[in-house]
Amino acid sequence: MRLSLFYTKTRRSMASQDSINAYLLEKAGFISQVAAGVYAYLPMATRSMQKIEQIIREEMNNIGGSEVIFSALQPKSTWEKSGRWEDKNFRQIVYMDPEADMTFGATHEEPMTIVVKQGVQSYRDLPVILYQFQTKFRKELRAKSGLLRGREFRMKDLYSFHPDEKAHHEFYEEAANAYLKAFKRLGLDAYRVKASGGIFGAELSDEFQVLCQTGEDEVLIDHKTKTGFNKEVEDQLKAIEIKKLERVKTIEVGNIFHLGTKYTDAFDLKYLDASGIRQSVWMGSYGIGISRLLGTLAELNNDEHGLKLPRQIAPFEVVVIDLTDSKTGTKIHDQLEKTGREVLLDDRDEMAGTKLVDADLIGYPIRLVYSSKTAQEGKVEIKERNSGKVTLVDLEDVVKHVEQLLS
Amino acid sequence: MRLSLFYTKTRRSMASQDSINAYLLEKAGFISQVAAGVYAYLPMATRSMQKIEQIIREEMNNIGGSEVIFSALQPKSTWEKSGRWEDKNFRQIVYMDPEADMTFGATHEEPMTIVVKQGVQSYRDLPVILYQFQTKFRKELRAKSGLLRGREFRMKDLYSFHPDEKAHHEFYEEAANAYLKAFKRLGLDAYRVKASGGIFGAELSDEFQVLCQTGEDEVLIDHKTKTGFNKEVEDQLKAIEIKKLERVKTIEVGNIFHLGTKYTDAFDLKYLDASGIRQSVWMGSYGIGISRLLGTLAELNNDEHGLKLPRQIAPFEVVVIDLTDSKTGTKIHDQLEKTGREVLLDDRDEMAGTKLVDADLIGYPIRLVYSSKTAQEGKVEIKERNSGKVTLVDLEDVVKHVEQLLS
Repeated sequence: MRLSLFYTKTRRSMASQDSINAYLLEKAGFISQVAAGVYAYLPMATRSMQKIEQIIREEMNNIGGSEVIFSALQPKSTWEKSGRWEDKNFRQIVYMDPEADMTFGATHEEPMTIVVKQGVQSYRDLPVILYQFQTKFRKELRAKSGLLRGREFRMKDLYSFHPDEKAHHEFYEEAANAYLKAFKRLGLDAYRVKASGGIFGAELSDEFQVLCQTGEDEVLIDHKTKTGFNKEVEDQLKAIEIKKLERVKTIEVGNIFHLGTKYTDAFDLKYLDASGIRQSVWMGSYGIGISRLLGTLAELNNDEHGLKLPRQIAPFEVVVIDLTDSKTGTKIHDQLEKTGREVLLDDRDEMAGTKLVDADLIGYPIRLVYSSKTAQEGKVEIKERNSGKVTLVDLEDVVKHVEQLLS
Repeated sequence: MRLSLFYTKTRRSMASQDSINAYLLEKAGFISQVAAGVYAYLPMATRSMQKIEQIIREEMNNIGGSEVIFSALQPKSTWEKSGRWEDKNFRQIVYMDPEADMTFGATHEEPMTIVVKQGVQSYRDLPVILYQFQTKFRKELRAKSGLLRGREFRMKDLYSFHPDEKAHHEFYEEAANAYLKAFKRLGLDAYRVKASGGIFGAELSDEFQVLCQTGEDEVLIDHKTKTGFNKEVEDQLKAIEIKKLERVKTIEVGNIFHLGTKYTDAFDLKYLDASGIRQSVWMGSYGIGISRLLGTLAELNNDEHGLKLPRQIAPFEVVVIDLTDSKTGTKIHDQLEKTGREVLLDDRDEMAGTKLVDADLIGYPIRLVYSSKTAQEGKVEIKERNSGKVTLVDLEDVVKHVEQLLS
């Protein structure tokens, strides 16, 4: 891909933002603020978000999830049935068009339960595991922290329906493990943290928290087991127990809920068991903020020069900068592209300094520079963004060398 | 993929719907109605929509588009600037949360212009071509025709920014051709139809219309050139001219607009030309309804047994139904999956008749049946959904035969 065809405009100077992630992502041309807590994702961020989504999609498929796309619009009648229409906790955070009797979904328990009710009669129809990537809306009064707390955000939400408590709990643990696996693949070291059910009316929930000094959350954690407790449940712990734990600042990257039969009973979603007796369906919901993950990765992976997103998330793996008048850079780019590498040729009509500074700001994991100086020796300079390590490599070995670094 | 793991529930009986597409897609378990004009896309529809999006994505990339994801939420202030906040045409169709001073985007001219203004200074920064796949909202008073006219829908919208009228017009023609190519790949025979600029304040526009007896639109077309005129511009034609054309019912599947400098001037998006003079930027917008395309394809491709979606859009290419107690069906499924085919094994605990009826209803392009009868001859029955053609093939030739049918 040529950068001239891939719309990206970095900025040299910029007003300070409400967070490191918003500042860096906006400076590097990944995002543009539309309003407080509302962002447009530009080509670089779109690629990164698609990569995040693909990793999570694979892990959700692995635990038997089927992908769906539900509507953001939800009618008043269904929210009345679950009791959320008049719930002041929800009234505060949900966008509504009162004239149209519609809410814009911040969460999807109601429509999921209704759809599953259409298809479930007997125990043979269970379990049902549905997930979606969707744009959600929350009327955040204090939208802040860039992508970490928005009024509009991308989210993966999964809903599970099982025949009894035991089957539900087994799946809940599977989902928790899939979450830990997904976060690991994304380059995040997540802690599983006990929390209350919160406004979802859940009995219990688990949060997935990532250590971050600028994080909004504060939790008690045990480094050895990678588990912990959030503030809501702290008073349930004994003082011996609390002492053993460390209080840290974190960012919440996922949250999973035991919903029990609250929503399924509200919509009378029941099934006939093997003896022909009507039984309640057990439900869980499982959320991951996709745009928040991008914000978290930016918040955690940067230095004074810019972003250092992990390579499985970076929009491109390699940038090629040719400072000579030759076609050598183009050739290297074409060769790498042929091997399936995600490579960008910086073919902009810009100064050398601009190209080098932008490469660090955007944070391509590998930067290749071909200059009159390296040309004299028939070499290319390879710089790894993460370690800063610079190597001079023979022209004919560049592709092989890049392959080694990325394998 | 095993059907037991891929949540799909067909229906035997169903209340009549407002259209053929909604009736068939809901009966075949692709969609579920949430409210008038609002649908949940279940796993089958989600796969088909992803395939539609991928074809369109490739064609938009081919004309130099960069993919972005803009926000649905748009602040009142930007719509005031373009004059649309008080425009009664827009007030009628846009969801608003008056308390939050926000609209939910039915269209994205304002935020696109604002973002491009941030990155464009000189002629060297142009053109800019951005597109997105997004959920859009329109307060349709008469939401009807299933996926053809919804209150919430998936859309691909592209926005182009060029330095002058000539460059804009050249790109506009490129985009029109990319549209025709995309529709052809989707299995649609689209006509390019002249139209007025409508409520977008465009000077001119082109619609892409597909012939369909149940379509909402009525246009005059010339079969030879695959072009035509819609009702808005009919009175500009001479009676000689009209006589040559045929009046037909159609579904609009795309619409492209010359926006001139209306929005770019409103936001003072200008650039310095090669002589250092400030110039206006020429803009175009280009829309394709993704969910409407799925509705159109269902409306056009069906028979009394169910859907016959073209195979590049069908959720799976092949279904395997094994009516014996053997593992032969599983083996065939695994072999086909290994060759990269999108194959589903109907492993549900259902009657043979149900599986065969569902296969026609969902409309898998190829249906493989292994029964005790075909087993006696060591054969598998291959049925092509589109032609209805049935062939008996030796077990060892099944994979080869399927490959031939799909190549």
